[in-house]
Amino acid sequence: MFLQIKRVFKHSPPIKLLLIRNIQRQPINFASASFANLCLRIEHCNSHLHSSSSRSKSTKVQPIVLNWGTKKINRKVRLHLKDLMTNPEVEIQLAPLRALVLEQGNLVRELKSNGASEIDIKRAVAELKLRKKTLEDRELELTPNVVTFDRARMEDLLKRRFFYDQSFAIYGGITGQYDFGPMGCALKSNILSLWRQFFSLEEQMLEVDCSILTPEPVLKASGHVDRFADLMVKDVKTGECFRLDHLIKNALEKLSKDKNATPETKLIYEDIVIKLDGMNKKEMADILTEYNIKSPLTGNDLTEPIEFNLMFATQIGPTGLVKGFLRPETAQGIFVNFKRLLEFNQGKLPFAVAQIGNSFRNEISPRSGLIRVREFTMAEIEHFCDPNQKDHPKFQDVAGTQMILYSACNQMDGNSAQQATIGEAVKSGLVANETLGYYMARIHQFLLTIGIKRECLRFRQHMSNEMAHYACDCWDAECLTSYGWVECVGCADRSAYDLSQHMAATGVRLVAEKRLPAPKVVSISEIVPNKQVLGKLFRKDAKAITDALSELSLDEIKSVENQLNETSEYLLTTTEGNTFKLPADAVTVKNTSKTVHVEEIIPSVVEPSFGIGRIMYALLEQNFQCRDGDEQRCYFTLPSVIAPLKCSILPLSNNVEFQPFIRQLSQALTRAELSHKVDDSSGSIGRRYARTDEIAIPLGITVDFDTLKDPHTVTLRERDTMKQVRVDINSVTEVVKDLSTGRMQWSEVLMKYPIFEQQETTK
Amino acid sequence: MFLQIKRVFKHSPPIKLLLIRNIQRQPINFASASFANLCLRIEHCNSHLHSSSSRSKSTKVQPIVLNWGTKKINRKVRLHLKDLMTNPEVEIQLAPLRALVLEQGNLVRELKSNGASEIDIKRAVAELKLRKKTLEDRELELTPNVVTFDRARMEDLLKRRFFYDQSFAIYGGITGQYDFGPMGCALKSNILSLWRQFFSLEEQMLEVDCSILTPEPVLKASGHVDRFADLMVKDVKTGECFRLDHLIKNALEKLSKDKNATPETKLIYEDIVIKLDGMNKKEMADILTEYNIKSPLTGNDLTEPIEFNLMFATQIGPTGLVKGFLRPETAQGIFVNFKRLLEFNQGKLPFAVAQIGNSFRNEISPRSGLIRVREFTMAEIEHFCDPNQKDHPKFQDVAGTQMILYSACNQMDGNSAQQATIGEAVKSGLVANETLGYYMARIHQFLLTIGIKRECLRFRQHMSNEMAHYACDCWDAECLTSYGWVECVGCADRSAYDLSQHMAATGVRLVAEKRLPAPKVVSISEIVPNKQVLGKLFRKDAKAITDALSELSLDEIKSVENQLNETSEYLLTTTEGNTFKLPADAVTVKNTSKTVHVEEIIPSVVEPSFGIGRIMYALLEQNFQCRDGDEQRCYFTLPSVIAPLKCSILPLSNNVEFQPFIRQLSQALTRAELSHKVDDSSGSIGRRYARTDEIAIPLGITVDFDTLKDPHTVTLRERDTMKQVRVDINSVTEVVKDLSTGRMQWSEVLMKYPIFEQQETTK
Repeated sequence: MFLQIKRVFKHSPPIKLLLIRNIQRQPINFASASFANLCLRIEHCNSHLHSSSSRSKSTKVQPIVLNWGTKKINRKVRLHLKDLMTNPEVEIQLAPLRALVLEQGNLVRELKSNGASEIDIKRAVAELKLRKKTLEDRELELTPNVVTFDRARMEDLLKRRFFYDQSFAIYGGITGQYDFGPMGCALKSNILSLWRQFFSLEEQMLEVDCSILTPEPVLKASGHVDRFADLMVKDVKTGECFRLDHLIKNALEKLSKDKNATPETKLIYEDIVIKLDGMNKKEMADILTEYNIKSPLTGNDLTEPIEFNLMFATQIGPTGLVKGFLRPETAQGIFVNFKRLLEFNQGKLPFAVAQIGNSFRNEISPRSGLIRVREFTMAEIEHFCDPNQKDHPKFQDVAGTQMILYSACNQMDGNSAQQATIGEAVKSGLVANETLGYYMARIHQFLLTIGIKRECLRFRQHMSNEMAHYACDCWDAECLTSYGWVECVGCADRSAYDLSQHMAATGVRLVAEKRLPAPKVVSISEIVPNKQVLGKLFRKDAKAITDALSELSLDEIKSVENQLNETSEYLLTTTEGNTFKLPADAVTVKNTSKTVHVEEIIPSVVEPSFGIGRIMYALLEQNFQCRDGDEQRCYFTLPSVIAPLKCSILPLSNNVEFQPFIRQLSQALTRAELSHKVDDSSGSIGRRYARTDEIAIPLGITVDFDTLKDPHTVTLRERDTMKQVRVDINSVTEVVKDLSTGRMQWSEVLMKYPIFEQQETTK
Repeated sequence: MFLQIKRVFKHSPPIKLLLIRNIQRQPINFASASFANLCLRIEHCNSHLHSSSSRSKSTKVQPIVLNWGTKKINRKVRLHLKDLMTNPEVEIQLAPLRALVLEQGNLVRELKSNGASEIDIKRAVAELKLRKKTLEDRELELTPNVVTFDRARMEDLLKRRFFYDQSFAIYGGITGQYDFGPMGCALKSNILSLWRQFFSLEEQMLEVDCSILTPEPVLKASGHVDRFADLMVKDVKTGECFRLDHLIKNALEKLSKDKNATPETKLIYEDIVIKLDGMNKKEMADILTEYNIKSPLTGNDLTEPIEFNLMFATQIGPTGLVKGFLRPETAQGIFVNFKRLLEFNQGKLPFAVAQIGNSFRNEISPRSGLIRVREFTMAEIEHFCDPNQKDHPKFQDVAGTQMILYSACNQMDGNSAQQATIGEAVKSGLVANETLGYYMARIHQFLLTIGIKRECLRFRQHMSNEMAHYACDCWDAECLTSYGWVECVGCADRSAYDLSQHMAATGVRLVAEKRLPAPKVVSISEIVPNKQVLGKLFRKDAKAITDALSELSLDEIKSVENQLNETSEYLLTTTEGNTFKLPADAVTVKNTSKTVHVEEIIPSVVEPSFGIGRIMYALLEQNFQCRDGDEQRCYFTLPSVIAPLKCSILPLSNNVEFQPFIRQLSQALTRAELSHKVDDSSGSIGRRYARTDEIAIPLGITVDFDTLKDPHTVTLRERDTMKQVRVDINSVTEVVKDLSTGRMQWSEVLMKYPIFEQQETTK
């Protein structure tokens, strides 16, 4: 659900980038067990010197090199990592800073509960952020462990082996759009297929596939037409666009650093920056004029502020009259089909609907690779339930799941995220209800299954100022990357907001019937016209009168009854505005009662919303590795279940005698539905292993001269340990299948089959 | 690839709809074995009388009923079916008509080979079409077998059980856009997953996933910006749009039927209609004026003709300067990534790239349900190969595949489609090459696997006048439906067209290197300036002269050499247009030779292109069935491999003792990755079987009172035969798995397990 995601990004503090010269060259080891319980700080450093040679080499291989992500060559990201369970001595030094955060957090709470003015609250929140930042900086200073992550090296590998790359590169490329090559596409498709298995099938969800082109009224009702916008200004000469809040902030910060700036003007600038988030178009325009802000790139004048809606607009049909947008999220397709889906579920609540599909947002300045793009795949679930029954029948199955929870309270108090079971969190009321908690635990399980590291995954609760006004509770699954903690899955209880909006816009009742605990007797009043009397009295007007009577509401009928009882007549006004005096014998009010067994309710919605591109990015980064002592040999430790290819087949050399065995193996793997790649290119076997490691192939089968002997055997090599065993050619497919589906572990294979050391390169 | 698809639809003769009153009520039996070797004719008939009751019933269940496909209530489609192998007596009557077609076909060929004028050829083709039509009509008149297919009943079921429905129905809906509900989405996702298995994995294709939003230059190069358009006019008052060629044709045909029309004017009208297809905007505008053509709906004036491009336009980024379109096909994403993909394949040809994704076409008037829509899923393959080596290593594996081939020649000669093996067709040269033939056979196998009936599938060759100018050969896989033969998969040899276009537009060399059979020695001429002499003679102009020399082509260098040999001087013109007389000692021409091992080639492309929505529609129609003697009990005979759900679990009643068994079964099926549905709603078991049959669930497990006894057993029921067996609860999951994956047939199950007749409804 976008409105939330956007809000998160607006409010999360920007990550400070500190450029330093000396770097530690040890690679980050996200995958190893020692990498537990981390906090993070990011620094960047240029290191042209030791890597320009490798860069020019790769440039030679592929002449079309367009930069995305970092524009710097081999810019390393330095991660400062810290145990969650802080060392007691360090804690003593931090205590006063924690106290300052807590004090300010309490002040914010107090101001809110006293209904203080918006500006006062904003000021207090700004101070709170500053104190949190000071605490964080100090925490990191006191942290001894430092590792580096070489983002440029990873991005180079991702481009070179075509996991993904900028779209339309030969035409100069488009920012914020990416094409997934064979490895990226297979990875994505494996993640989605597992997602279907893990959510749709396991929970028996109803999966739908709705239109991308959406007519305006639908997105008007959802709030996107009016509110899904950012303010921007354009350079009047070049047309370059700038997000207005970012522009003003940067300009004032620059002014503030000017040597002529007095302490007083600095305070004014600071005050404006704090207030920016709550300013309207006019106020921001005035600031532009007052401080004579120009284009930071050219110094040219800027246009008046423009509200830029982030949806891509188009026209549906040839008339040009039907305005449409590319959907900014998949969720609305589910809400507008609610009625049919409820029917499909035979009218019963709860039920969950899933959808996987593309959404589009015309970002003003897309950046950070796959993290902020214009076209992206989402997987969304809408779980519809009774607003008063948010327990979940399978909650007990997941209640013991240990998670890192970063509550709104802890964020306000300057505390760290904390470990807890989801059972405890729901019991204590920290997580609003079992259904929300159930999905959080399932999201946690899913992300770990695909290879996100437990210690690099946290659930952060939205604070009240970033939560949509209609939401009850909202938690984001955030993954740790070199860009900081990145929101990858949102999980919100959205109450009845969306269905109510579409109901109001269309008049279609998007409700479910709920059986009452006991039948209820309701009284019914009906007005019965005496047509004969009316005909006699009013002739040709009689019909208009009966029509008007039939449209009276329950309250109006009551009032007719009262008037007739009191005055024996009733003054009726028809829709045409004519008034008629009806005598008591012209109408009768009949009071009856009815037993009802059901009531109508608008269901609540719990919405887990997965950003597939972001998950993929976090996954790739957390699984990126280089071999000890050899920075050139990089690989991804992706688990078999989502690895782009399950297995490689490598002939030791181009000896023709190997070919029948290669064919036999390839056919057997295809029959077993195991994706694989035959690499019969020239190059040493070691070099080819390195190539298959780069594309995360977990297992490799090698056909060598021993294969030619009876019984025919091959070697099976595992990517992460680089260990090999010798297996009969007829059983190797089953071993690969068992390892790929998780039925067997590599450690078991090592015990079962003879270890193999090195291929003979000749007969 | 759209340009072809469009062309096909333009040229295929419209299906004549004949309204008749009496209909045969026997349902069409696409699934039965007796339905072999068919030809088709379509008629429609209104039959409000015997089916209005069923309709009003379904209307009650779902208040939101928006029509798509047919707007008539229960309009039955009457299919005239005919053996391909015609009866000899009938053949005698048809012989003179066949001869007339042949005669005209030969005339068309002659005109073309003599380079006759376009109008003469068009006239001859129009006559050819007329003769073909007469032959076809006569063929059908002589056909005795008639069956009906009740399209409205099927569409009602598809809506009611939410296979798919018009998008945004609660907002009034949008034509040409559909949302897939749980059953449609599961069916689609199963088809795509099998497609991946069948093509990507089996052939080790490189699958990619490219952007939908495409900048203008890419689609300019592909030809879509200039040529992907239809001419239309608008009603000046209502804004209603009409496709111009259709409008003129209908208007003149109406004038022609007027009682005042003389034979002379009729001839003129006819002549215009024939020429329409080749007319430009101006000529059509003149006809509008001359015949004073108005809106057929309102009689209002019409605008000037407008070229309406069928792509959805939008703007990428906030500047409004980058024009983009929603891609009209997925193929271009593959072509622009050719270089990276070739690199990924280590520079080697051939290789195939696959892509599944959505495409968009802003049709002027979408119709025919899923067959012509604005937003649709395609699965495309681009097989890149050496233009001189189009053999295929696996062709022999498929050479024996029997297919119905409808050659361009047979279409020209008035003959029927013919059975042949693909091996014979390639050998005889009918199908251009092995690679094209291989894909045709694989498409054939794939369509049969998912449930398209062998006798309702033909491959029709494009005739030369409908084939794109750059294509060598093109065959469409057409499926028989009540809309006629519908193109579902195109399979074209597109030569080097697309890569050449993008190469010309970007200057990037989209070529592959091909190893020469033997190294080749090529001579190289180089021009070496004597800088000292040039400096002395020309001073500041020396640099311009050496620059100009370095840009000379091989031919120009030869000419320099000749001139120097003949006249001892050479007149050089620089890029600035200055001319210098160079003496013999100022330059030397050096002739050397070099051994080259490779040459550059632009690969040819063979492109199978699948329209997933059309395939789904054909599949649903061909598998739609009603139980003998009960028109209300309809079902789909979809094979397990693509059925939306593999199995249902039904408790005989809501007895609480059944619940643990239901849970046990559901968990076991989930573990075995078998999608299923528990139907514990009220209603007799028979009624619930009927409900599961409607959504094509092939197998049903029922828990009854016998299940409670030890050993616990359940019944397993098969959808098509409605037969049941009794199976132990612990082995039933494996039986379902074996049946669903095709490892076992239902006939084997019937022999292995005891037949079960009827549930006891009490203990």
